[in-house]
Amino acid sequence: MGKNAIVGQSGGPTSVINASLAGVIQASLRRDATHVYGMLHGIQGLLDKQYCDLTDRFSSALAIELLKRTPSSFLGSCRYKLPDPEEDPEVFEKLFAILREMDIGWFFYIGGNDSMDTICKLATYGAKTGSDIRFMGVPKTIDNDLMLTDHTPGYGSAAKYIGVTMKEIIRDATVYGTNFVTIVEIMGRNAGWLTAAAALARGEDCEGVDLICLPELPFHTDRFLAKVEKMQKERASVVIAVSEGVKLPDGRFVCELSDDHRTRDAFGHINLNGTARYLSNLVARNLPTRTRPEELSNLQRSGGHLASRTDITEAYQVGGAAAKAAFEGETGKMVALHRVSNDPYQCTTRLVDIRDVANFEKKIPVEWINEARTDMLPEFLAYARPLIQAELTPIYIDGLTQHIVEG
Amino acid sequence: MGKNAIVGQSGGPTSVINASLAGVIQASLRRDATHVYGMLHGIQGLLDKQYCDLTDRFSSALAIELLKRTPSSFLGSCRYKLPDPEEDPEVFEKLFAILREMDIGWFFYIGGNDSMDTICKLATYGAKTGSDIRFMGVPKTIDNDLMLTDHTPGYGSAAKYIGVTMKEIIRDATVYGTNFVTIVEIMGRNAGWLTAAAALARGEDCEGVDLICLPELPFHTDRFLAKVEKMQKERASVVIAVSEGVKLPDGRFVCELSDDHRTRDAFGHINLNGTARYLSNLVARNLPTRTRPEELSNLQRSGGHLASRTDITEAYQVGGAAAKAAFEGETGKMVALHRVSNDPYQCTTRLVDIRDVANFEKKIPVEWINEARTDMLPEFLAYARPLIQAELTPIYIDGLTQHIVEG
Repeated sequence: MGKNAIVGQSGGPTSVINASLAGVIQASLRRDATHVYGMLHGIQGLLDKQYCDLTDRFSSALAIELLKRTPSSFLGSCRYKLPDPEEDPEVFEKLFAILREMDIGWFFYIGGNDSMDTICKLATYGAKTGSDIRFMGVPKTIDNDLMLTDHTPGYGSAAKYIGVTMKEIIRDATVYGTNFVTIVEIMGRNAGWLTAAAALARGEDCEGVDLICLPELPFHTDRFLAKVEKMQKERASVVIAVSEGVKLPDGRFVCELSDDHRTRDAFGHINLNGTARYLSNLVARNLPTRTRPEELSNLQRSGGHLASRTDITEAYQVGGAAAKAAFEGETGKMVALHRVSNDPYQCTTRLVDIRDVANFEKKIPVEWINEARTDMLPEFLAYARPLIQAELTPIYIDGLTQHIVEG
Repeated sequence: MGKNAIVGQSGGPTSVINASLAGVIQASLRRDATHVYGMLHGIQGLLDKQYCDLTDRFSSALAIELLKRTPSSFLGSCRYKLPDPEEDPEVFEKLFAILREMDIGWFFYIGGNDSMDTICKLATYGAKTGSDIRFMGVPKTIDNDLMLTDHTPGYGSAAKYIGVTMKEIIRDATVYGTNFVTIVEIMGRNAGWLTAAAALARGEDCEGVDLICLPELPFHTDRFLAKVEKMQKERASVVIAVSEGVKLPDGRFVCELSDDHRTRDAFGHINLNGTARYLSNLVARNLPTRTRPEELSNLQRSGGHLASRTDITEAYQVGGAAAKAAFEGETGKMVALHRVSNDPYQCTTRLVDIRDVANFEKKIPVEWINEARTDMLPEFLAYARPLIQAELTPIYIDGLTQHIVEG
C-alpha cells in the first residue's frame, strides 16, 4: 500500500485556485498516492479532522474540467496563522499526529504569503522531528505579490476581469457627455498589481482610464484633486482606478479618513473599503462634477466567467509540478513560474525555497510608473498582457455558467 | 431622393441597446432611407444639432456585428424631459424645424418610460401640426418596467449577469465556513424585476440566494433582522439580494436611513445607493456575524461580456420591426414583445399605442412571490428563464472584449 496525499486551499479565493487543485489531484493519482484527501477549510479544518476523500470524486475527466471552471475555493478556506513551532509545538504535535493517522506522505497547500508561511513552518518542524512527509507550496493569489515567481496564478484572470470591466465602465460613464468622475476601487493592500491592470483597458477601441493610483506611491489629496480638475478640462468623463490600499504620506490608509467602522481580520490586517466612496465625495465637494464610486468587489477574484485561459493552464501546471516534485522527494519548496520570454510568451515552472518566499511581498517596480504618476509604462503592459490571453469558455447550462457540485 | 431616418438613444444604457440601433439602421437602409442619422446624446443633443451620419459607417456586416457586441449607448444618451407641448411649444417648433432641415421622414427613439413619453409628445405635436414624420418608440430598459410588452430588451442580459454573478458571489461567500452575511444591492427603483433575477442562481450546483427583498413589498427592518437571524441558524453563509429601491412602510427609501448625501437626477428622482451598506451595518450591529455589502453597480446594465443571445436577438428584432412599421406609415407607436409560449419559448413583435405605455410602470405580480416573502415562485422562473438563454460570444482581441470604435 502506498501512502496518501492531502491538499488544502487557504486565503482569499481566486477564479483559478481549483485548477491548481485539479493539477495536484491528477498528478498525485497518476503517481503513487493511494488516496488524495482534501482538507476542508485548510489547516484549520484539518486540526478538527475535517477532510474529504477526493480520489473517486475526481477520477472522471468531466469532473476535472468542471473543477477547472469553478471559481472560489472548492475545499473551503481559512485565515489561520500557525504559531511559531519553537514557542508553541502543541499545534504541530496534533497536526502531525493527524497526518500520521491518515498515512500522509505528501502535503500540498495552495495559497499566498500566509499559506507559504504555513508550509515553511510545517517543513521546518517536519525536518526537525524526522518526519518523511513532503511539504509543497502551490502559489495562488490575485494580488501577484509573491516573491521569486514571475507572477502568481489567479492574477491573470483578475487582471482580465479588470481589463474587460474597465472597458465597459468607461463606455457606460461617457454616455451622457456631461461632467462625470468615476472612481473605481480595486483590491490590493500593499501591492498595486491589480490596480495597474486597469491600464490594459486602453486600446484602439477605448481611451483607457485617466488616472491610476497605486499603493506603492504616497497619496496626496491635494495633488489628486488638482489632477482630476486638470483632466476634466480636457474631457467630460474621467475614470480613475484606485487601489483600496492607497496611503497618505503619514502611512494611514486613505479609507481611514472616512468615518466607517473598521474591523480587522485574523492576521490583524485592517479591512479596507470605502476608498472610492471617500474620494468620490471629496471630488464632488470640491469640483463642479457628478461623481460615482464603483467597487469591483469580490467578482474581481471569483468572476470565473471571465477567467484567462493562460492563467487556468498555468494554475493547473503549478499544481502538477508541485505533485511531481513532492513525489520525487522535494520538501519545503514552492513551485514558481519562470518567464522565458515575453514575445512569444513562454513560461516554465521551477522550485524555490519556501523560506525565501514566505512573508515577503513583491511590489510593482516604481520605474514601471510614468513620471507624472498617472499611468503605467509599456514595460508593465508587456509584462501583464500575456497573462490575460485567451479564454476557456464556461460551460453554460440553462443560461448560466455551470460549476462543480460539491460532495 | 428619398427622405432620411434619424435614431437616438436615451436613458440608462444597457448591454443590448446597440443591437436595437443596429436593427433600426439596417432595416432603414434596406428600405427607402437615403441617410440614417444618429442623434448624439438623444433629443437634447439634437436640439443643439448634434448628430452624425451612420449610413456609410454601418454599411459593413462586421461593423454591425461589433455594434451588436458593444454595450452602453453608442450614440450617447440624455435624461432630458420634453415639456408639455401645450404649455411650451417653442422647444417643439425648434425640433421640428431641425427635422425639416434634415429632411427627416422617420424618427426612432430607443429608451424606457421617459423616452416613450418623448415619442408620445412628438407624435402628438406632429399630428396636431400636420407633420408627416413617423415617430416610433423602441423599448429598452434593464428595469423591465414598461407596460404592454412581455419584457423589455436589456432585461434578459441584466438578469443573466445577475444570475451568473450571484452564483460566483455565493461560492465566494461560503469559503471560510464562518458566519457571514452578504447583502447584494441590485438596481430597480420601483420594480423588482432585476432583484428577482437573483432567484435564477439556484440550481443543482448552487443553493441560491437565501432572501430576496423587492420594492413591491414594504420593508420592515425588524422582520428583516428576524429572518436573517433564523436563516443563519441553518447555514453559516447567508446571501441576500436587495433592491436599491426597497421602501419602509412610511414610503421612505431604506437607503435614506443612512446619512449619505442624496442628490436628484434631471427627472427629480432621488439617487439611490447605500442600501446594502446600511443593511450590512445594521446586521453587524445586531447579530453575531461578519457582513459584507456588494453593489452590482453599473456592470449589471453594461456588462456586455455576459449578454444573453436571446436578448441581443430580440433587441435587434424590435429595432427592425420599428423601422418596418414606420416605413409602412405607422406613427406614435412602440414595438412590444409578445410571448407566444414559454416552452418552447416563442416571442413575436407587435405595435402598441405609445399613449398606453408612456409614464406607466409595470411591477412584479405579488402572486409570483412566496408566502414567506423570501423568494420567487416557479411562475417567475418560468417567465425569466427563457430570457437569459444562450450566449453571443464576445470578439476577444489581445485578451479583451472588442467594441466598436467611435467615429
